[in-house]
Amino acid sequence: EASAKVIDGKSVAKDIQGEITAEISRMKNEIGVVPGLAVILVGDRKDSATYVRNKKKSCESVGIKSYEVCLPQDSREEEVLEHISSFNNDPAVHGILVQLPLPSHMNEQNILNAVCIEKDVDGFHPLNIGRLAMRGREPLFVPCTPKGCIELLHRYNVDIKGKNAVVIGRSNIVGMPAALLLQREDATVSIIHSKTKNPEEITKQADIIIAAVGQPNMVRGSWIKPGAVLIDVGINPVEDSTRPRGYRLVGDICYEEACKIASAITPVPGGVGPMTIAMLLSNTLTSAKRIHNFN
Amino acid sequence: EASAKVIDGKSVAKDIQGEITAEISRMKNEIGVVPGLAVILVGDRKDSATYVRNKKKSCESVGIKSYEVCLPQDSREEEVLEHISSFNNDPAVHGILVQLPLPSHMNEQNILNAVCIEKDVDGFHPLNIGRLAMRGREPLFVPCTPKGCIELLHRYNVDIKGKNAVVIGRSNIVGMPAALLLQREDATVSIIHSKTKNPEEITKQADIIIAAVGQPNMVRGSWIKPGAVLIDVGINPVEDSTRPRGYRLVGDICYEEACKIASAITPVPGGVGPMTIAMLLSNTLTSAKRIHNFN
Ligand SMILES: NC(=O)C1=CN([C@@H]2O[C@H](COP(=O)(O)OP(=O)(O)OC[C@H]3O[C@@H](n4cnc5c(N)ncnc54)[C@H](OP(=O)(O)O)[C@@H]3O)[C@@H](O)[C@H]2O)C=CC1
Ligand SMILES: NC(=O)C1=CN([C@@H]2O[C@H](COP(=O)(O)OP(=O)(O)OC[C@H]3O[C@@H](n4cnc5c(N)ncnc54)[C@H](OP(=O)(O)O)[C@@H]3O)[C@@H](O)[C@H]2O)C=CC1
Repeated sequence: EASAKVIDGKSVAKDIQGEITAEISRMKNEIGVVPGLAVILVGDRKDSATYVRNKKKSCESVGIKSYEVCLPQDSREEEVLEHISSFNNDPAVHGILVQLPLPSHMNEQNILNAVCIEKDVDGFHPLNIGRLAMRGREPLFVPCTPKGCIELLHRYNVDIKGKNAVVIGRSNIVGMPAALLLQREDATVSIIHSKTKNPEEITKQADIIIAAVGQPNMVRGSWIKPGAVLIDVGINPVEDSTRPRGYRLVGDICYEEACKIASAITPVPGGVGPMTIAMLLSNTLTSAKRIHNFN
Repeated sequence: EASAKVIDGKSVAKDIQGEITAEISRMKNEIGVVPGLAVILVGDRKDSATYVRNKKKSCESVGIKSYEVCLPQDSREEEVLEHISSFNNDPAVHGILVQLPLPSHMNEQNILNAVCIEKDVDGFHPLNIGRLAMRGREPLFVPCTPKGCIELLHRYNVDIKGKNAVVIGRSNIVGMPAALLLQREDATVSIIHSKTKNPEEITKQADIIIAAVGQPNMVRGSWIKPGAVLIDVGINPVEDSTRPRGYRLVGDICYEEACKIASAITPVPGGVGPMTIAMLLSNTLTSAKRIHNFN
């Protein structure tokens, strides 16, 4: 009796990667340029290493050349800044990404600000965020995860204009830019966070919900307006002894309850996750096109 | 039977100007520096000339030195840019303000971007707006009108944290930054604009309403939750043959209806208006203090 359409992020991401592959080969043929993405990894966090490996693989699969720098945990901030500076000046590199979190002895803000704005494919620079917030201004890059959320709505023909949208979470990398994007498309946006007193009541009025909280199954069936469209950004490990690793991943929305009430929903995994990486590839291509003036 | 407390912006603005006057004389005594504000006016719009004259008068009254450049309507963009550049380099100038609107043959974005961010006392630079939107970042300046709205809430001891706030209007200079400021203070914020389908329903849930729409008396009594606090930014001329000029000014909120339902409300005129100029003086002082490292 689950009635919601499943928004298949994995399949959309695959389509997008196909489109990117085609564009990159056209670019290579016509002007001989291959987009390049540089990734800087500091320290030996396993999860970070996995993310970086996946990004590298995805780059290869679409024809983006990837450059990788791995620095030990106890590196000095200056070393990271030197690598950023040399990538800033390297014409073969069109996007620069610093894998977060950085070791605690480093100043994240300093390091992120060092990436030149033309290569800030993460879109986290305050100048980009400011342009995203302002009418009549265009950011150079839109942060990947929120961009992926909106792209899913577009590809599933979900009307945004004039709809009531609720974003749960307001982080700099997901919730806040997601709210700005929805607003740019003329949704009426409300933003819920940890100090909100009546999240259920507000969420219940939404035609579109984007949940980016980091709280497993927080959004229950009773929070959802019948027919709403749900985008679940959350990726939360919960114990599960039936799984080989002892845990499984769930979203911020209680899928079993929600899929009976919503008109469409993203699964976790296989929803927003694959879109994030597709948007990173897309931003890198956009950057190479802009730098080389190629349309 | 009007029960709402009147939020007296005129009187608060006067208090603030008193505080600024005291700080400026302390600064002058201790380090011999007087803050300076440069205003650039292009063209001969009467309303703009009035605003500029008022700003100048207010500067004088608190001890800020004001510099004024008036250029003819048919000036070239380069002339404006040259004046900005010389103010950027002038150590006696701590704030630069370009009176809007500019003549239509000029590129407003180019001109505003030319003001160096350390002297952008209007706070309209995208880098400032980005920092305002981001957690953990601090803007150098907060735009004057929305800053004035929040300052009124503070001075009247209105709790913001955890309250439901609705901002009606999302312009770059008022509505959008007002929403970001409320959010920074942990309100749960919803933003209403011209594409919103059920503004009354959403507004009715708000503990705090900031209206910046430019539609006379749009917010009616039926839109307001009993006990709400209302900040009316709107300044709208409506015909009134009993007035010497043939018109009077009203806000975006229907005052006569609202004052029976709200717990507090700003009048128009005498509410937000005087606060805008007080915040401009405050931003200019902040800038001079920062540039001269004076606390
Ligand atoms: N699919 C993908 O590619 C990606 C997935 N993620 C996942 O998305 C989720 C969110 O990530 P991120 O934005 O980085 O997380 P953050 O921890 O940075 O932000 C979480 C936000 O949720 C709010 N919040 C926390 N608890 C509650 C609550 N009980 N009720 C309402 N709001 C609450 C916080 O509020 P406050 O601001 O008041 O503290 C904060 O704004 C995580 O599960 C993460 O793993 C993240 C990035 C990419
Ligand atoms: N007190 C002071 O010092 C100041 C006062 N003001 C006054 O504040 C008011 C707003 O100014 P400003 O922000 O510059 O105006 P703008 O015209 O730039 O923006 C108006 C906003 O209101 C929205 N809007 C318009 N009509 C409706 C409607 N019927 N329902 C819902 N939303 C609507 C618009 O929506 P959309 O984005 O969809 O077009 C837009 O976001 C004006 O009256 C102005 O005179 C302004 C600055 C300073």
